Amino acid sequence: MKGTIKLFSTSTVHGSGYLDYAGKAVQKLFQGAEHVLFVPYARPSGISHEEYYAKAKAKFDDLGIRLLSIHHANDPKQALVKSEGIFIGGGNTFVLLRDLYQHGLLDIIKEQVETGTPYMGTSAGSNVAGLTINTTNDMPIVYPPAFEAIQLVDFNLNPHYLDPDPGSTHKGETRETRIKEFHQFNTQPVVGLREGSWLTIQENEIELEGTLPARLFFADRAPIEVHPGPITAHLLAP
Amino acid sequence: MKGTIKLFSTSTVHGSGYLDYAGKAVQKLFQGAEHVLFVPYARPSGISHEEYYAKAKAKFDDLGIRLLSIHHANDPKQALVKSEGIFIGGGNTFVLLRDLYQHGLLDIIKEQVETGTPYMGTSAGSNVAGLTINTTNDMPIVYPPAFEAIQLVDFNLNPHYLDPDPGSTHKGETRETRIKEFHQFNTQPVVGLREGSWLTIQENEIELEGTLPARLFFADRAPIEVHPGPITAHLLAP
Repeated sequence: MKGTIKLFSTSTVHGSGYLDYAGKAVQKLFQGAEHVLFVPYARPSGISHEEYYAKAKAKFDDLGIRLLSIHHANDPKQALVKSEGIFIGGGNTFVLLRDLYQHGLLDIIKEQVETGTPYMGTSAGSNVAGLTINTTNDMPIVYPPAFEAIQLVDFNLNPHYLDPDPGSTHKGETRETRIKEFHQFNTQPVVGLREGSWLTIQENEIELEGTLPARLFFADRAPIEVHPGPITAHLLAP
Repeated sequence: MKGTIKLFSTSTVHGSGYLDYAGKAVQKLFQGAEHVLFVPYARPSGISHEEYYAKAKAKFDDLGIRLLSIHHANDPKQALVKSEGIFIGGGNTFVLLRDLYQHGLLDIIKEQVETGTPYMGTSAGSNVAGLTINTTNDMPIVYPPAFEAIQLVDFNLNPHYLDPDPGSTHKGETRETRIKEFHQFNTQPVVGLREGSWLTIQENEIELEGTLPARLFFADRAPIEVHPGPITAHLLAP
């Protein structure tokens, strides 16, 4: 896990605006960058790349960071090489990963991050930083050529993690049940990140940030709750 | 849409046992069948094929219907040809569809149903009766070779349909938002089936059963609520 990476559970927490709660962390991540490249492929609620870029740009303007968008580039690979920061926004993980494959961008993003370009993902943009998208919550509205993702980190993410609701009468699976099912077929740990939490990865150290605990799921042992602070030891292979 | 088909939103409704609410409908569907073949591939909560079969068999015993399981058959295709009814149980839609492809069973199930073998699906077993699994709620814990499903009907299903919760502070997408995103990329109608509802398809007629309305989603117009009774006209191509 090389590079400097921030993986946010969500772009927006209840009762505040887009990225409001994350502003300082975003400024810290991209400090000194001449510009950051936005990847709008996940298209939340099906909005266009241009609409999505406008939304992100307005916030980045407020934060004093120049945001460009990959959908304006004639050569997306070249745009990634030139960028001094990468921000992949949330939306639908399947649409996002399909487009990353279509444009052939997975390897180059990994290479850029590993050679020092800071990376930020929210929701789907955090999912694709993991090993695979097998633990996304999204609806599989398109079929990507594989579920393997960019693999900036050696585990999977479950953003928007939700605890079981003891009062629910609904018979759909809880999130924890779904992740247990995932571990019938896969071995990597899964970080259940509650809304308002994020992971900061730097120099092989993983830190949980925000005010809430996160829930870590493993193939071979019971899940655990971890509190904000360093959590690297829990996620290294035993 | 040939054959006689019942697609249930869920196997179990709140406050009652497995298939309790559906018993009479199941008996009617399989009336006169010497035996019904169970397909346990979806493995709810990761339970084994044998455990899942035991659960379904106990209920079918109560209903006076002999239930065999495809996982006991040396030749699953031959078992389907010999069966006088097919029941695909719920669980994980991706695991189910992957196994149907691995055993090469999609075409033969369609052929059997179209030549008169009654079909019943619950949850994931209803999803795979649709055109594709692009509207499943499940976590994509394995990668199937395609999302195209058995295509017994000319639309998609969304079982366990949940209305938006106006009191929620959670920022994950609502079910309706997800289905709207689906329609940015796909054209077929989607039937949002609430728990306790099912569709009965016979001789090209589609009927909504149970006590609740269902919500129908279209690519080119606003969703509508339909009440129990015939709903064929809404789902035929205009």
